[in-house]
Amino acid sequence: MQDNEKKCLELANRIYDLDAEVYKCVGSALGRTFTGNRESTVENLCMLMLTKPDGHLLRSELALIGNMARTIPDKEEKAQMMAEYDSILSEIESLPDSFGKVDIVDLARAELNPSAGKKLSENDHLVICISRTQGSAGNDIGFELADELHINYYDVEIFNQVLNRLEAEKGSVSDAETEHFTDFDKYRKKSFRLKTWLRDFNRYHGLPRQDAVFFNMSDLICNLARTEDCVIMGRCADSILANNHIPHISLFISAPFPLRIQRIMASKNMDFRQAARFLKQMDRQHKKYYDFYTGGRWGRAESYDLCINSANYGIGETIDLIERMIDQKRK
Amino acid sequence: MQDNEKKCLELANRIYDLDAEVYKCVGSALGRTFTGNRESTVENLCMLMLTKPDGHLLRSELALIGNMARTIPDKEEKAQMMAEYDSILSEIESLPDSFGKVDIVDLARAELNPSAGKKLSENDHLVICISRTQGSAGNDIGFELADELHINYYDVEIFNQVLNRLEAEKGSVSDAETEHFTDFDKYRKKSFRLKTWLRDFNRYHGLPRQDAVFFNMSDLICNLARTEDCVIMGRCADSILANNHIPHISLFISAPFPLRIQRIMASKNMDFRQAARFLKQMDRQHKKYYDFYTGGRWGRAESYDLCINSANYGIGETIDLIERMIDQKRK
Repeated sequence: MQDNEKKCLELANRIYDLDAEVYKCVGSALGRTFTGNRESTVENLCMLMLTKPDGHLLRSELALIGNMARTIPDKEEKAQMMAEYDSILSEIESLPDSFGKVDIVDLARAELNPSAGKKLSENDHLVICISRTQGSAGNDIGFELADELHINYYDVEIFNQVLNRLEAEKGSVSDAETEHFTDFDKYRKKSFRLKTWLRDFNRYHGLPRQDAVFFNMSDLICNLARTEDCVIMGRCADSILANNHIPHISLFISAPFPLRIQRIMASKNMDFRQAARFLKQMDRQHKKYYDFYTGGRWGRAESYDLCINSANYGIGETIDLIERMIDQKRK
Repeated sequence: MQDNEKKCLELANRIYDLDAEVYKCVGSALGRTFTGNRESTVENLCMLMLTKPDGHLLRSELALIGNMARTIPDKEEKAQMMAEYDSILSEIESLPDSFGKVDIVDLARAELNPSAGKKLSENDHLVICISRTQGSAGNDIGFELADELHINYYDVEIFNQVLNRLEAEKGSVSDAETEHFTDFDKYRKKSFRLKTWLRDFNRYHGLPRQDAVFFNMSDLICNLARTEDCVIMGRCADSILANNHIPHISLFISAPFPLRIQRIMASKNMDFRQAARFLKQMDRQHKKYYDFYTGGRWGRAESYDLCINSANYGIGETIDLIERMIDQKRK
């Protein structure tokens, strides 16, 4: 501990000197970072290093010196100052409990995230799960992305077709009518009919119809993600894959409400009021579905790897951005 | 219009044929995409192309054929089928009102977004605005990012120091005590004192103190963004720069609540309850401040270019991700 104190004292002196030197070189109108005398400044800096409640203030002081140093006109002087700055910074970072020391990483998740460190092995596949708000062009983006990457594309219509055919073939748990997204009813207020109830009870092994369909869909999604590269739209695929420890990237695509209205008006021939009502209803349905089946929070940054505002990029640039995000890591 | 109908009819026939061919090559257990006869299928496809309410279903049908085609084992056959698939796709995309035709882009914003198409001219600067939730390592990420890119770093402590000095120098509108973030009080319930009120009224040209500080801060942020490359933490910088038509990238960094608690406990020596209370309070304050000064919605995907879940990456990988996002476009 005494060693630590000695090191802090030395560092504090170096910081004080650096500030004075940088000021001499650049002559900022704002004056030096530290306006007090050496003794009190060094004492304060030592305190910050030894007792810092995550080094917030110390970092700001250093950044201020660094910012000034970067404006030094003379190249040689600047290089010299920046070298000392970098050296001080790395010594501070090596102190116990320094800033940046406590990472935020959720290792279990990061290890399954191909857009983070995760290297895809031969048995792994590139699976991109995309959730989106209606009208944000999420489907267009997913479809074109799959096409550009030469990988498969799955959305709810495809899942329904596949499930129907699987059922027709195996006569197993699935639903001929299939669950359409807009039919999702969390509270199941539909009128009760004993005959239907009994038929469904047998058919779905006692599960409510939509839960049975959800579980079926989950199996299908896991199987896909284990066997091929693909883009999967919606269906809480990100959460399903995370629960099954299957590598994937999870994206959420949205755009400001007024722009989504404009787009829906243009693409669905609706007037303003229709479009607004439609979007609100769809957002409510999406949220209900996601929150119910995942326990997460739909559309929040912390529920996905990345959320993209497609309006700030446009369809083409959004696809480009996603490719940049994943490409380097696949190599 | 008749030309259009003829083209749709031709395309519908090609799609039907492609499906049949692909099925012949791959022999999927799930059977062909179109199970009906040619006449009715072609009629349905034509309808979808001519009346489509944004082509959702048509796209799914095509994707299903494409997905199957990609599994054809024979390379030559596969290439042939994919060529036909691509050709059909591009013809459909050239139809009026086809899917992907209505973009979502907010041109005014996209043109100021260096991570989208925007090329930075000599007079422009790379400005990265980072909002974040407390405990998501946003500050560490911003600081290290600035350091790696060799650009300046600004956070609230630095802004306050700079504003104080500017005031000391010019005696202009600013605040010696400066507004600390946690003091922000939207409803200004503080007890009223005539003397203080009169002094502040003169000092801030009739503006409430915190608004005056905000406007001062805004000027400073605009000046910075016009003259240097930098990372700016918080302070609604994204919104301020957007209003002033200054190019910038806006990021939001967050992480799941339980992980943020863990990190705060580790870095601030708090127990679980203290950390939870602290985070909730900070989130409330951040939200209040952002929503009040920007009219936007704090922490929502549509308020930023990109939201990153730092827990799914960790500090180092998050920085890497941001660099990938911007690097290619700067060249």
